[in-house]
Amino acid sequence: MTNEIKEGLEGVVAARTRLSGIDGEKGKLWLAGFSLEELAPNAHFEEMAYLLWHGQLPDCEQLEAFRARLSSWFLPGHTQSLIEAAVRTGQKPIDVLRLALDSLCLEDAEADVALVGATPVIVAATWRLMNQKPVIQPDSGLRFAENFLYMLSGRRPTAAMACALDTYFNAMVDHGMNASTFTARVVTSTRSDRKSAIVGALGALKGPLHGGAPEPALAMLQQIGIPDRAEPFIRNVLERGERLMGFGHREYKVRDPRAAVLAQAAEKLCEDKGDTGLFDLARLVESEAVRLLEEYKPGRRLFTNAEFYTAVLLHELGVSSELFSCTFAVTRMAGWIAHCREQEAVDRIFRPQSEYVGCEGREWVDLGNR
Amino acid sequence: MTNEIKEGLEGVVAARTRLSGIDGEKGKLWLAGFSLEELAPNAHFEEMAYLLWHGQLPDCEQLEAFRARLSSWFLPGHTQSLIEAAVRTGQKPIDVLRLALDSLCLEDAEADVALVGATPVIVAATWRLMNQKPVIQPDSGLRFAENFLYMLSGRRPTAAMACALDTYFNAMVDHGMNASTFTARVVTSTRSDRKSAIVGALGALKGPLHGGAPEPALAMLQQIGIPDRAEPFIRNVLERGERLMGFGHREYKVRDPRAAVLAQAAEKLCEDKGDTGLFDLARLVESEAVRLLEEYKPGRRLFTNAEFYTAVLLHELGVSSELFSCTFAVTRMAGWIAHCREQEAVDRIFRPQSEYVGCEGREWVDLGNR
Repeated sequence: MTNEIKEGLEGVVAARTRLSGIDGEKGKLWLAGFSLEELAPNAHFEEMAYLLWHGQLPDCEQLEAFRARLSSWFLPGHTQSLIEAAVRTGQKPIDVLRLALDSLCLEDAEADVALVGATPVIVAATWRLMNQKPVIQPDSGLRFAENFLYMLSGRRPTAAMACALDTYFNAMVDHGMNASTFTARVVTSTRSDRKSAIVGALGALKGPLHGGAPEPALAMLQQIGIPDRAEPFIRNVLERGERLMGFGHREYKVRDPRAAVLAQAAEKLCEDKGDTGLFDLARLVESEAVRLLEEYKPGRRLFTNAEFYTAVLLHELGVSSELFSCTFAVTRMAGWIAHCREQEAVDRIFRPQSEYVGCEGREWVDLGNR
Repeated sequence: MTNEIKEGLEGVVAARTRLSGIDGEKGKLWLAGFSLEELAPNAHFEEMAYLLWHGQLPDCEQLEAFRARLSSWFLPGHTQSLIEAAVRTGQKPIDVLRLALDSLCLEDAEADVALVGATPVIVAATWRLMNQKPVIQPDSGLRFAENFLYMLSGRRPTAAMACALDTYFNAMVDHGMNASTFTARVVTSTRSDRKSAIVGALGALKGPLHGGAPEPALAMLQQIGIPDRAEPFIRNVLERGERLMGFGHREYKVRDPRAAVLAQAAEKLCEDKGDTGLFDLARLVESEAVRLLEEYKPGRRLFTNAEFYTAVLLHELGVSSELFSCTFAVTRMAGWIAHCREQEAVDRIFRPQSEYVGCEGREWVDLGNR
């Protein structure tokens, strides 16, 4: 054991991937060869997922077949009962999602599509049951993004809403070797099954340090409420030495490219709805925050991350902040599975070392003499 | 991204631990400062788990309090219903275990003891339901190892049986940074909850490459059946270039110290039962295998690993090979939780790098032009 410890495995390259590449200095995100900016406003989620799984965009026929398979996953009765019971005992939506997915009997050949298809159905059913409303099954004629909003609210979304959600899905579908994706790959590396990998990844995703949780960013915007309160609020947070939610990222030393794409989508959505109040406030808070972060933490290069405009976008889509983690899981599911497929091809178990820092040679003492 | 890739993270030190230390050249396993040989025949599982969680052996009062807490976990009705449904749909015991554990509503403060207490109860209930027998709740007066055998069979185990199972539990409770323990630490590193970490670890444990599965070793002994068939059987396996189950380990270059401890326990158990047939066969197969491995793969230093005598020991205890992975999980649960506790103290997220090997600059093509 002569190697030195790599705390948090920072800087250690654990895998090769064709799925996403991050250039933190330039603020670029590559997704299967496309820049995020190229894909985000154009691709529907189905095209994005197909691209990650197959390395190329689907043609008309492939896309329609894939869309139809994804939209035809219906909630089985026993899974709905399980969700009802879990909701009754007050479990959080992300925990209900994991339990419900784990309860599915999946054949290996269909598991990937079923897991992606099932996730929005389970999340929407959980939300409806939490709010004492009847569960809505997917409409097999709708696109993936449309279906999710339809199953949540019972209303067909506008084109602007579906487009905004597709952009969110595209922006968040994959992002290098984050902790949940890494978990999925470690589990897969033992030749375990897909459900095991996904259930493990969901456990990592819900951790507050995973960084996929935009709830606090929305809470901050709501607390600030009006433009005049932005500066004093942010100063107060920074004076207290607390973390400003929605800013800073371990990888990006410039503005997270997802922030730009999400901001654009949120702006279009708000304009379509005819109310840009929250978006305008977010813009103002962003510029104040960036200015004050440089003042309080000079040289640290802390800029807007993906969570900040995710909060605005999902809120404007009518998605409750209680579902933000689950909505992240809806899209990231496709990314996790793409990584599992890559890991299967590598077929090498993750088995790092640990350094034993305990003592040696302790002697047994019988119970009576302790 | 100038670092080179560490395939499978081999040789990378991912964590420091006081829980277990492996010296693969000398064939030593340290458990919280004690050599395995010192602990294995002396400690009950409760003392072992307490030692890992608290760094020292419990006194009389601490031990009795811990034992009583571990033995007082009763199967809730809704969890039993869930197990019944999963058994009906033909799910494997290890999958039922994960689902049942994930269905529990646990307060943080009680989660560690509850997870360790629940695991044998769920495994035994699953087994009883698979065999159309009524579920047996734990007897709060029994020790942990006694209780597991009692809940499985409905009969109080002999002292020799309980002692053999304790030795197995001690030998298998923790073993460095294996894939399931690593998974538990990665999930915990996001500040996720204990159940998430354990559910992730179970997914890794069930992977065929994890190496915790002694079923094939038992199947081999049963196929060999009589001493005279040992040599031709092993030669046949090695001639075909297949892996000989129960031999070889990434870490150990000598005999796995757990094999010695497990062999001793299995021998005592068989003598107590008055039938050493399987044990004697195993001894013979071991010596033939070691001899022939050196003949066919000279210098590779492949020796008996823990799975080999685990198979004999669990079989002689009446534990079906269908439950071998679950029985491993019963003890490893305490090790995983000990690692989660260590990881919480580190509080640093695992976030390795990936190397992007895809292309850049692909251009969007509209659906009609693909």
